Amino acid sequence: MRIVRCRYEGQSYYGRVDGENVALLSDFPTIRVSGGAKEIVCGKELNRVPLAKVKLLAPCQPKKAVCVGLNYRDHADEFGHAYPTSPVLFIKPSTSLLNPGEKIQYPPLSKRVDYEAELVAVIGTTAKNVPVEDALQYVLGYTCGNDVTARDLQPQDGQWTVAKSFDTFMPLGPWIETDVDPDNLGVRSVLNGQPRQSSSTKYLIFSVARLVSFISRIMTLEPGDVIMTGTPSGVGPMQPGDVIRIEIDGIGALENSIA
Amino acid sequence: MRIVRCRYEGQSYYGRVDGENVALLSDFPTIRVSGGAKEIVCGKELNRVPLAKVKLLAPCQPKKAVCVGLNYRDHADEFGHAYPTSPVLFIKPSTSLLNPGEKIQYPPLSKRVDYEAELVAVIGTTAKNVPVEDALQYVLGYTCGNDVTARDLQPQDGQWTVAKSFDTFMPLGPWIETDVDPDNLGVRSVLNGQPRQSSSTKYLIFSVARLVSFISRIMTLEPGDVIMTGTPSGVGPMQPGDVIRIEIDGIGALENSIA
Repeated sequence: MRIVRCRYEGQSYYGRVDGENVALLSDFPTIRVSGGAKEIVCGKELNRVPLAKVKLLAPCQPKKAVCVGLNYRDHADEFGHAYPTSPVLFIKPSTSLLNPGEKIQYPPLSKRVDYEAELVAVIGTTAKNVPVEDALQYVLGYTCGNDVTARDLQPQDGQWTVAKSFDTFMPLGPWIETDVDPDNLGVRSVLNGQPRQSSSTKYLIFSVARLVSFISRIMTLEPGDVIMTGTPSGVGPMQPGDVIRIEIDGIGALENSIA
Repeated sequence: MRIVRCRYEGQSYYGRVDGENVALLSDFPTIRVSGGAKEIVCGKELNRVPLAKVKLLAPCQPKKAVCVGLNYRDHADEFGHAYPTSPVLFIKPSTSLLNPGEKIQYPPLSKRVDYEAELVAVIGTTAKNVPVEDALQYVLGYTCGNDVTARDLQPQDGQWTVAKSFDTFMPLGPWIETDVDPDNLGVRSVLNGQPRQSSSTKYLIFSVARLVSFISRIMTLEPGDVIMTGTPSGVGPMQPGDVIRIEIDGIGALENSIA
């Protein structure tokens, strides 16, 4: 199933893609877990409109975006970091969310703004102290994310919040795909049509299931919250006017330009 | 003015303290800035009830809590850190919020959980790229906060998110005081009746006005968001059964016990 958030005739809706159409829904789809089975609960269908007639928005509205640093061996290598022994977490604020197709704003404080292609897991039901083996049942699905980073504001020994929290620094989309295996997805970034990053989630140091479990032992995850699972090697700078495209096999592509 | 959030007859309300009573309000009070003057807009008064009949809750519901590390010279000294040249920021998730009087949960992952007394600024209207000289106009008022920290999960060279994001690790309260000078407030912590931290916000490296301005150049601040301004020296561990009290002159005291 493909879940979108979209604007249609001046209103915002969640929707379910059905071929060339979108079924507009009354609510954000959530997960019901019972007896080890996972069911997606979609709410009421309000209307059915052509996909071509809606503007796609970031597919969820996270209260929190929990991000994972240094979660691919090759990316840790390119910054000379040892591999982490437990997930390195930071939080991006909800105000950094950006819709597909909209412009990443280059902040006056920075002289180097990087793309970071990431698989993003979207939480579908409240998760607290979840065991690894059940963890994927709490995930509604997956989308593409760009963990935009003002690299020059990210000192080696400091917190990463300043570098990663600017408005527009969290593009997500184009939709949530519910039926993919998160452990074996090609992840790529393409800058102005040139390949930049190319890896697979099979090289994640901590898998999505381990991340959901670990994070849920620290903080309660809520429906719509996202986990940005980290970026592979090949990160680099973007300039005003550039177009950055994040592609994930089985999901789709998220494209934004730089203002 | 003292602004509370409270529970009364099974419902949650914002309220304005008026002597021994609370005026229950229709909305979270916000700020209107016009012509350099700041006005607090309180919404409709729904009811007036005795203060003694309500249960106080954390006085706002932040979408984000932006926290400042190493913002008192003596606290940077006690951890052997150089003084920061710009504010060191991290974010606590909204799920870590705790009401006055409720219990801080000791997480199984940690063996050392510390108190950190902090002055907390509560944002009253949307703030983006605010100059230092106007910054305090965007602040609704001030409350007491405890930036509870699992010290053993806070490695020197790592991100602080894991250590500071557990559920119940952000007690705030007891109310928002709108009429205090944030640059000259005594800040103390008292553990089981014993004084632990004692300082004043006049020793902040970055004042509240500088913090609001700096943070607003990175991310849009929204009504109800909070800025936790950092803690002075004297932090230390708490044990199950302990009672920790954060006191700020001109505001009041926030007390929680450890489960």
